[in-house]
Amino acid sequence: MQIAIPLYDRFTALDAVGPYEVLSRLPGATVTFVAHRPGPVRTDNGMLALVADAALADLPSPEVLMVPGGWGTRAALEDRALVDWIHTAHETSQWTTSVCTGSLLLAAAGVLDGLEATTHWLEMDGLGELGARPVQRRVVEQGRVVTAAGVSAGIDMALVLAARIAGDEVARAIQLLIEYDPEPPFDSGSTATAPAEIVELVRSAAAERLAAAG
Amino acid sequence: MQIAIPLYDRFTALDAVGPYEVLSRLPGATVTFVAHRPGPVRTDNGMLALVADAALADLPSPEVLMVPGGWGTRAALEDRALVDWIHTAHETSQWTTSVCTGSLLLAAAGVLDGLEATTHWLEMDGLGELGARPVQRRVVEQGRVVTAAGVSAGIDMALVLAARIAGDEVARAIQLLIEYDPEPPFDSGSTATAPAEIVELVRSAAAERLAAAG
Repeated sequence: MQIAIPLYDRFTALDAVGPYEVLSRLPGATVTFVAHRPGPVRTDNGMLALVADAALADLPSPEVLMVPGGWGTRAALEDRALVDWIHTAHETSQWTTSVCTGSLLLAAAGVLDGLEATTHWLEMDGLGELGARPVQRRVVEQGRVVTAAGVSAGIDMALVLAARIAGDEVARAIQLLIEYDPEPPFDSGSTATAPAEIVELVRSAAAERLAAAG
Repeated sequence: MQIAIPLYDRFTALDAVGPYEVLSRLPGATVTFVAHRPGPVRTDNGMLALVADAALADLPSPEVLMVPGGWGTRAALEDRALVDWIHTAHETSQWTTSVCTGSLLLAAAGVLDGLEATTHWLEMDGLGELGARPVQRRVVEQGRVVTAAGVSAGIDMALVLAARIAGDEVARAIQLLIEYDPEPPFDSGSTATAPAEIVELVRSAAAERLAAAG
């Protein structure tokens, strides 16, 4: 099974690597990182580059498409070649999926028209403006389209997907192999549980960063 | 604050990227991926390469050292230059940390002598043979040495570390920003909760893989 993860400037590494770590362990799966051109693609903070091993044009019809998000998503919405590639790949994919603001790219490609979908909690409005019906759940399944909430939610999404593709036993084995028995030291991972002042802190810092990025 | 993550052939990507995603968001932090030589380093399944931006020799004394694990750890134990770099870096580091079998490398470098430490559940015996006192907990703190269990445990470890370095408020804000509100679809992430047949399945598959690798 051919699984493609497109990379673009200023994506968020964990959005891509969480699902990769789960899906690469599916029997018979090959995960390929793709970009306009093969070569390194740098993440949102500039501190890391992942290597795309193939060009988008080399993989026009993967069986699974997994689109990460990141601070660079807004700029990527204007990237016609990337959005067109997603649109075309979705025509023949078995599963079309996203993590975080990756769903905005799915929406721009017309994949989410009228469908429920999720994204990072800071981008719910933006997702609605692009034609999806935003819902604040960790993983949202709509037939063969599966979207996940922010960054770390890709691990949960990929385990759900692994179970759909290969059955519960395989998904459970993968969960055990990556020892995914989460134990966050705080209960602060969603706007429902984080203290209000933390939510405001993150919201204002994000607004500043988006403003600075123009 | 300079944070170094050493990469070596056949490391596990999520071991490195989970902590990177948390620690890179600490105010004033710079995360640098290092290896023998700058350039791409390929993961355990060969499907992904991360780029090391600096050589080990370029960063002899990072303030935080974070060593990932992977199927390549066993071979890396014989890599004197890497083990010596860990040993020397630990002499001046504020924090020396690991994820998964990365703790075997800490042990080989003499960092864990007589200390409690953890690792991937499949490698507990190996950790003990290298001089540590293995304990099956998700995150083990021993002064400035912090070790995490398998693969995904690095996210929990890095949040604990973020709180120690920058305080609970910053750690909570990072948790919210990466929306770490885990919701695994199964309760199968540890040997205590996974069905016995799944534990045996994973154990025998891992034994086969290790045998095949020689």
